[in-house]
Amino acid sequence: MSTAGLVVIGDEILSGKTVDTNTPFLIAELRALGVSLREIVVVTDVLDEISASVRRLSGRWDYVFTSGGVGPTHDDVTIEGVARAFDMRIQRHAVLERMIRAYFESRGLPLPERNLRMADVPLGSSLVTADNLHWPVLLVRNVYVLPGVPEVFRRKFLAIRERFRVPPFHLRQLFVSQDEADIADHMDATVAAHPGVSIGSYPLWTPAEDGHRVKITVEGKDATEVERAYEALRQQIGAASIVRGE
Amino acid sequence: MSTAGLVVIGDEILSGKTVDTNTPFLIAELRALGVSLREIVVVTDVLDEISASVRRLSGRWDYVFTSGGVGPTHDDVTIEGVARAFDMRIQRHAVLERMIRAYFESRGLPLPERNLRMADVPLGSSLVTADNLHWPVLLVRNVYVLPGVPEVFRRKFLAIRERFRVPPFHLRQLFVSQDEADIADHMDATVAAHPGVSIGSYPLWTPAEDGHRVKITVEGKDATEVERAYEALRQQIGAASIVRGE
Repeated sequence: MSTAGLVVIGDEILSGKTVDTNTPFLIAELRALGVSLREIVVVTDVLDEISASVRRLSGRWDYVFTSGGVGPTHDDVTIEGVARAFDMRIQRHAVLERMIRAYFESRGLPLPERNLRMADVPLGSSLVTADNLHWPVLLVRNVYVLPGVPEVFRRKFLAIRERFRVPPFHLRQLFVSQDEADIADHMDATVAAHPGVSIGSYPLWTPAEDGHRVKITVEGKDATEVERAYEALRQQIGAASIVRGE
Repeated sequence: MSTAGLVVIGDEILSGKTVDTNTPFLIAELRALGVSLREIVVVTDVLDEISASVRRLSGRWDYVFTSGGVGPTHDDVTIEGVARAFDMRIQRHAVLERMIRAYFESRGLPLPERNLRMADVPLGSSLVTADNLHWPVLLVRNVYVLPGVPEVFRRKFLAIRERFRVPPFHLRQLFVSQDEADIADHMDATVAAHPGVSIGSYPLWTPAEDGHRVKITVEGKDATEVERAYEALRQQIGAASIVRGE
């Protein structure tokens, strides 16, 4: 199974000045691609925070995505953080430099030296190119470095998304009118008998309009196994307590 | 300055089955209370993940809040995770047990053994009581253990929020029509001259209706220092490029 981690770099998110829309977007995308997102970390724009998080998640999950901190200002230290995570030197990338120069020349604009810093990347980085992508995505080991601006984050991820696709998740759900504690034994039994399936239990504070108090999710990568666990649980709980299944 | 970390326990959030509303709520609350939220971690319902995250954040920040995983089912392992984080034993808490028994008795309900497990907490836990709180909040060292159900998470936090209040943040903002790269030197200078103030720079992908391309935030705990940094930056950028300040 493919696993992923996400490192969000953002003082503005932790302080509530900006609502993080990149995380919900990536959650939905990875899910649709069959990738199991295992960990999200939101850290401040501090070099050591970024490097420690990137190093840690990179060692744990197949892919890591970073969001934010890649602009030209003092609080944009993600590239340096990623380099430091892997003890890599930063070096001006000839291809990126050429692309930046070409961009400014094509528009007849002067090129501020500061903008060339956008070509400074960890030595050993890859550039992932794709159709519909004017500017490549920076890949450092298993870390995809994405910008925080939501429109750009989305556009870049969508351009490279197919490289992550693996077989999909299968999900069944039961909506139950009993209290969570009263069906917990049934869930325990199903969990024990179907180790390849993960079972989640989500109680409501007040019962839903249709009368359900608990939503139970049964999911996994093997459709047959999911189906078996779902049926076993359905029979144990009993039709009288099941509001609906889907 | 008071600092805080948040550990969200939730397969359902990482897999996109539930939208996490507790995090935005806590971000706004801590901000209003003057507490600096420094790190958010979202992990799966796995014991070692929870204990490692709680241990790590507890050692780094003044307060840690956990959200989720405290019900009576197989996927509710937060209490055990917190205990393991601090190498604490779990023991049935007499006060909690009495409360649970009283609750069921008052309603004339039988008490399932499983529900008594809600009284099993790390040895050395404190119970934080407050007006408007029927059930105390569990405090283990500097870790406040809160349930994932949003209504309960909110109610519990609101009941104890005043214990976290410290002097407020002061925030000024400048909306600038220039590109981020063109004003980066001014920001660098202000950052260097006002170390007690944090300055953030947030570019828009397309200019706003009023013409601004970058929002600059100037903030800190010392109102006078924030004011000085704001004025210095305003003068360096120049009135012609400033769409508005607030």
